[in-house]
Amino acid sequence: MRSFNPATGEAIGAEFSRSTRAELEAMADAAFDAIDFLADAPGAQIAEFLEDYAARLESDREGLARLAHEETALPYAPRLSEVEFNRTTFQMREAARALRDERWREVASDESNKLRSTRVPLGGAVLSIGPSNFPLAFNGVSGGDFCAAIAARNPVIAKAHPGHLNTTARIFEHCAAARDAARLPKAAVQLFADCAPEDGEALLAHPGVAALGFTGSRASGLRLKAVCDRLGKPASLEMSSVNPVFVASHAADARAESIADTWAASVFLGGGQFCTKPGVLFVAGERAAARVAHRARELFASAAPAVLLTKAIHEHASAVIATLRARGAQPLAGLAASTTAPSPASRDGFRMAPTLFAVEAAFARAHRAEVLTEAFGPLGIVVSVESDAQLVDFARVLDGQLATTIVSDANDAATRATLRGVLRFKVGRMLDEVMPTGVAVSPAMVHGGPFPATGDARFSAVGLPEAAKRFTKLLCTQLS
Amino acid sequence: MRSFNPATGEAIGAEFSRSTRAELEAMADAAFDAIDFLADAPGAQIAEFLEDYAARLESDREGLARLAHEETALPYAPRLSEVEFNRTTFQMREAARALRDERWREVASDESNKLRSTRVPLGGAVLSIGPSNFPLAFNGVSGGDFCAAIAARNPVIAKAHPGHLNTTARIFEHCAAARDAARLPKAAVQLFADCAPEDGEALLAHPGVAALGFTGSRASGLRLKAVCDRLGKPASLEMSSVNPVFVASHAADARAESIADTWAASVFLGGGQFCTKPGVLFVAGERAAARVAHRARELFASAAPAVLLTKAIHEHASAVIATLRARGAQPLAGLAASTTAPSPASRDGFRMAPTLFAVEAAFARAHRAEVLTEAFGPLGIVVSVESDAQLVDFARVLDGQLATTIVSDANDAATRATLRGVLRFKVGRMLDEVMPTGVAVSPAMVHGGPFPATGDARFSAVGLPEAAKRFTKLLCTQLS
Repeated sequence: MRSFNPATGEAIGAEFSRSTRAELEAMADAAFDAIDFLADAPGAQIAEFLEDYAARLESDREGLARLAHEETALPYAPRLSEVEFNRTTFQMREAARALRDERWREVASDESNKLRSTRVPLGGAVLSIGPSNFPLAFNGVSGGDFCAAIAARNPVIAKAHPGHLNTTARIFEHCAAARDAARLPKAAVQLFADCAPEDGEALLAHPGVAALGFTGSRASGLRLKAVCDRLGKPASLEMSSVNPVFVASHAADARAESIADTWAASVFLGGGQFCTKPGVLFVAGERAAARVAHRARELFASAAPAVLLTKAIHEHASAVIATLRARGAQPLAGLAASTTAPSPASRDGFRMAPTLFAVEAAFARAHRAEVLTEAFGPLGIVVSVESDAQLVDFARVLDGQLATTIVSDANDAATRATLRGVLRFKVGRMLDEVMPTGVAVSPAMVHGGPFPATGDARFSAVGLPEAAKRFTKLLCTQLS
Repeated sequence: MRSFNPATGEAIGAEFSRSTRAELEAMADAAFDAIDFLADAPGAQIAEFLEDYAARLESDREGLARLAHEETALPYAPRLSEVEFNRTTFQMREAARALRDERWREVASDESNKLRSTRVPLGGAVLSIGPSNFPLAFNGVSGGDFCAAIAARNPVIAKAHPGHLNTTARIFEHCAAARDAARLPKAAVQLFADCAPEDGEALLAHPGVAALGFTGSRASGLRLKAVCDRLGKPASLEMSSVNPVFVASHAADARAESIADTWAASVFLGGGQFCTKPGVLFVAGERAAARVAHRARELFASAAPAVLLTKAIHEHASAVIATLRARGAQPLAGLAASTTAPSPASRDGFRMAPTLFAVEAAFARAHRAEVLTEAFGPLGIVVSVESDAQLVDFARVLDGQLATTIVSDANDAATRATLRGVLRFKVGRMLDEVMPTGVAVSPAMVHGGPFPATGDARFSAVGLPEAAKRFTKLLCTQLS
């Protein structure tokens, strides 16, 4: 298996081999060497590993960011070399802090009943599978789930994403060096590049693996969820979300064009490949919605094509667009480029023109699943809704989402209040005005939300130490 | 459907009708009337409902305990009228406290990022299904899951257990009166007696139902887990556990007989119908194990038959015994009575003689699943293990359990340490010497454990406010 340069569609870097089932099981067997060690080690020793790891990454900042840029086509600066890089090392240092101060483990003591309870590690490795769109900050071997699993004192078995195999291998060199320097067992962190799906399932079933941390597509996530559910092993799944924006009628009337500007800019961020991209904009009032769509059309038509991360993402977005067209919606911008499948021979890479749909409420009601399907890429949909009451109706039937934004003016107070009452149960994060794309690393962040956005709305994947609780179990012992 | 007097096997009390799917869906539709109300009501108003409910139950203490005694054959005093009754009202007052002081909702504020997160209700009713063995304290409409769901501000739709339909109906009269007195919507708490399994699944799938709280058999629990997993709805499942006891060799040598005494007394408690019954006793050292078995045989043979809660429990225990016999194990006590299926005509009720097996380690290895199957009833198994090392091996292959106990002397320190290192990942509660049967209601209690003992080792079903977190979701909003 090789990664591709998305800008050219050509394979780059080393050939990575697929691990056999025996090799995967050997990794899970080896995890037993690290389980007790990590559970019992001084927190400072594991913290030093993370701090040294962060420092080693920083010493290779330019090289790593350049390689990640080559493999993902994400901008070198500031995106990779600054923003994502700093987020990655910040998360490692937050995890180190969670190991130096373990109050988040919720120790509860009861003198009269002679009981003490706390959160302990799971007793097995966390299989950590990161997504394509954050080659550093959500990488299985350096990202949020990795940090959370280690902060909770579990070994990690990470799977590289096929979109950035070389970046991941280079990150892991630093990880392994820091691991060895901190005298942690080799099995504290292990990495593999690829496996057959059924061998991945066997790995999850191995007693040396206790949990899954997954960020990726809904299809893969649901498949892995079914495996973990059957095994009774906890799975942290971040799958998909369209993060709809709801524009109340007075705000839409007063600011149609500026709302379109803000929304389109958010859709275009990172080539439309953020899991918090606001993919659908519901606008109350048909005349205002037409103005929003008109302005958005100018923006989409004049924006440069985005180079998508992988061929699979290009194919998925193209399929979503084709389905919407088959249902009768016509794109206002982007048609020609979007229907062309990428061809490695053409050296055009995985490019996609910004693609805008504007549909009526009746269409969105008739084809709700299609309109509300997540698609990475510069794709956005404006839904023209009859009134504020119908805007609320769309909120009521929404599936679980990571985030949502309500756009409203003072005269929309009642609509805003009703929307908030409905949406608080539908999303992990509910914003006013601000588009949901940015996800601050903060203990007050919730990067989560009801199924199918994630597997469990009671947890957050971002924000230590809270995110580490995903990879713990409760244990009660006697006070002596 | 009617409940039975377990002491006679005769049907007693009213006939309860099975709810149709339309009736169940009407309950779920109605839940929407209560969701916002409970989410937004002053905590004190909901707390007053719970406090008034507790007081109303106490005013009917004798009548309720007598009725529960008739339907369950559990001792009237002190078990029902004192211990379980007080636990029930204590839990309600703890839930009220969690509504008056909501710090457990983990509000996190971040001024620099203008974020605030907290735990909010789920936005739907909790379907609350209690077990047979605690007609008051784990009843779907008055027990731990009910209290946790209401403390988290969710409506409750409770299903009565067929073993105590009349008790549950009488409890619900008090509940409804308190609910109405506190001016909560009717749909804040609803009750039904029975439904077809497929209609129960339809109820879970209804958007008005957000989660499941279940305590009961593994078979039912796994069936409901599969439904909830498919729907992506959180399920709190307490299913089954044998809560094995591990006796290290020096302790076994020094105190074989007193260990047998302590263990047998714990097995007999409540007719062996506690989910924390220590069903299996692993004893290191074959001579000591023989002494334990010899003493246990005297105790089991001389103990009175237990009246089991239901015909189904009697049948399940009888089947477990029959399977062990079919594999070649012979009971040391209890054979005759245990193999007789209960017959309503005989008026013997659901009686079972205390039944003891003593098996070799080789048998337990060959038939691990059968030896480690939970069975309510006065059934206990002593496993004679070659050595301390082999004792640890049995711990290593253990499935998830609610609780375990290690019995050890000073000379067993190394064995105890190794066992603790292994068992901390296998159980929710790990005790020394003390049998695990008693479950104190305390914030430091963990009534949980890895699958298949429960559905998720990250939560506890007992101990407010922690247990209420099961029925919440995280929500992040903006600081204004």
